[in-house]
Amino acid sequence: MEGEVQKGLEGVIIDESEISRVFGEEGKLLLRGYEINDIAENADYPETLYLVWNGELPTEEEYEKFAGDMAERREIPPEVMDSLRNYAEANLHPMDAMMAATVNLSGYDENIDPNAPQTFEDSIDEVREAGKNIAAKLPTITAAYNRLRDGDEPVEPREDMDTGENFLYMLQDEEPPELFSDLMETAFQIHMDHGTNASTFTARVVASTMANPYEATSSAMGALAGPLHGAANQDTLNMLREIDASDKDVGEWIDDTIDEGGVVYGYGHRVYQTKDPRAFILQDYAEDIIDSEYGDDKWYKLAKEVEAHMDAKGLEEKGIAPNVDFFSGTIYQQMDIPTDIYTNLFTVSRVGGWVGHMVEQYSDNRIIRPRAQYTGPVDLEWTPMDER
Amino acid sequence: MEGEVQKGLEGVIIDESEISRVFGEEGKLLLRGYEINDIAENADYPETLYLVWNGELPTEEEYEKFAGDMAERREIPPEVMDSLRNYAEANLHPMDAMMAATVNLSGYDENIDPNAPQTFEDSIDEVREAGKNIAAKLPTITAAYNRLRDGDEPVEPREDMDTGENFLYMLQDEEPPELFSDLMETAFQIHMDHGTNASTFTARVVASTMANPYEATSSAMGALAGPLHGAANQDTLNMLREIDASDKDVGEWIDDTIDEGGVVYGYGHRVYQTKDPRAFILQDYAEDIIDSEYGDDKWYKLAKEVEAHMDAKGLEEKGIAPNVDFFSGTIYQQMDIPTDIYTNLFTVSRVGGWVGHMVEQYSDNRIIRPRAQYTGPVDLEWTPMDER
Repeated sequence: MEGEVQKGLEGVIIDESEISRVFGEEGKLLLRGYEINDIAENADYPETLYLVWNGELPTEEEYEKFAGDMAERREIPPEVMDSLRNYAEANLHPMDAMMAATVNLSGYDENIDPNAPQTFEDSIDEVREAGKNIAAKLPTITAAYNRLRDGDEPVEPREDMDTGENFLYMLQDEEPPELFSDLMETAFQIHMDHGTNASTFTARVVASTMANPYEATSSAMGALAGPLHGAANQDTLNMLREIDASDKDVGEWIDDTIDEGGVVYGYGHRVYQTKDPRAFILQDYAEDIIDSEYGDDKWYKLAKEVEAHMDAKGLEEKGIAPNVDFFSGTIYQQMDIPTDIYTNLFTVSRVGGWVGHMVEQYSDNRIIRPRAQYTGPVDLEWTPMDER
Repeated sequence: MEGEVQKGLEGVIIDESEISRVFGEEGKLLLRGYEINDIAENADYPETLYLVWNGELPTEEEYEKFAGDMAERREIPPEVMDSLRNYAEANLHPMDAMMAATVNLSGYDENIDPNAPQTFEDSIDEVREAGKNIAAKLPTITAAYNRLRDGDEPVEPREDMDTGENFLYMLQDEEPPELFSDLMETAFQIHMDHGTNASTFTARVVASTMANPYEATSSAMGALAGPLHGAANQDTLNMLREIDASDKDVGEWIDDTIDEGGVVYGYGHRVYQTKDPRAFILQDYAEDIIDSEYGDDKWYKLAKEVEAHMDAKGLEEKGIAPNVDFFSGTIYQQMDIPTDIYTNLFTVSRVGGWVGHMVEQYSDNRIIRPRAQYTGPVDLEWTPMDER
């Protein structure tokens, strides 16, 4: 039990991984060796999933099979939909509804036999199949749940649309503009993996017990739901709303906030010392929206004012730069997506990383079981209740 | 990114904790400084929860309030019950049904406002209240789900019974013998905490993102569901069934299994070098059952034969001794509890430890975010699909 307490496990290396590599100083992110910009430009969501899960780009035939499977599996079983209705009755948070629905899906996967515990080491293909089931259905679950809690009926998924377009169609019951579809598809790609963050690490810890991929994914969602992790992507927009509602101008608000020890959301990252490469990709879309017929993006313009003022303060030079959450909220807002499902959208992307990490964990497993330093009392005598 | 890969995090100390202390050589387990035997002898389930969550034994008044709250909160909301019916349609594993139901409960806790992310550091009492809600309802969820999948209607919980008695009553729709009730209550106490095992660690990782206690608990269940962790408590009984069905006598079966590199389940533990103190407690109950009118416990007798043979081989001296799972399965079998809900029973107990660890994590938090050593390629050139 001796040794140093490594709170937060910062810098502790838990395993080897071939999935993503972040170059914090250059502001570069690689998935399986490819730059995130190349991926956003050349691939779509299923191709990115394929790359992350298999370590190489698919041939055309492999891609057609994979993307076709994904499109076919978008529907969710009627009992799962029924349970979503029940969750909506309690106004359950959309992340919690998604957690429950995900673990529920394990009952429909014929590869998972709960009465014959599996060593997934020998069935990695089945892990990827489970990943496909989950990733194909998460947009349906998110859109259906959002409609149900608003009192609307769910919209059936369509196979003739890509993931981004189909999601927006199911959410809003109308075919979205191409610009929005493309943006949504890209958002589903670029958040896919980012090292062993808390949710990805959770997926690995749970998989290390040989729990099944549905259980590990649902558990990882629990971590992503946390305000210090995935749920942070709501914070920038909420901050912009606050700035907008205040009497101060942008610069004044920021200066006062920093002086008072407050937080400017969407800024800074444990890993990047410069602007997050994913923020550039989203910003390009935001600029396109401004130039389009859907323009007048008040929130994006406000975000740019924030950035200009932060820049003028010289903070960006000090490594305090916009992260991926800085622009995503303004864009989703422009697309009329409710704020409290932003983390679900993050999940649709990050599930790709989780499944990739599960594949690595299952393939060469050691159960993850650390220690804690015991600092409590020992050998206490029991005191009967009437003497306490 | 330099440094040693600490696969499995064995020996890595993630934090300080005042909850449990295991003395592996002496075979001693303390919860909050009290020996597990004293706890089993003097306390009941709610008193043990109170101790683990608060760090001290309750006064009579505190105990009455706490146990009363627990008894009052046994019922589950009708929509949660409805969803259990849906899960049963898919024959979902009872652990998965429990995971989904647990996260569903967060929609009914007025202390949890998903639209105002909480820093639980400032609301530890609300974490304990959430813990009470969950712990009070898990036996109801388990019993109801088991009945529903068998085509039986759930049995309403009763407030006039203790947790063990009420669980068996809800499961079997008849008042259980006192010996079985006492045994069940004790089982719910003695599995409550055991250091930062994979599920408890999962609870801490998820709580470290400030995810809420329902999300952290559901995620921890994912880890406990794994065959290398909680689900191992089915293995001993399955092994005994195999021995019973084979042509070999017990000694021959064990010798052959060991010679062939197989596993004798219920033996050995990463931490104990001697017989697990919890195994002694359960074994005493097994002996009582033998001596009672419910006697003739074929499985326990077979387990004793296994132990005698392992002992004769000198394995116990080498530190390969019965663990807590060795006797629990035989006892549950004798009480007519289905094998695939054993892990749910483990959960009813372990949730106490999880909530205790969440209280510690929330109170002095640092987000848990380790690293992985990147071993993949860098700077790959994108190949168009038609050239692959």
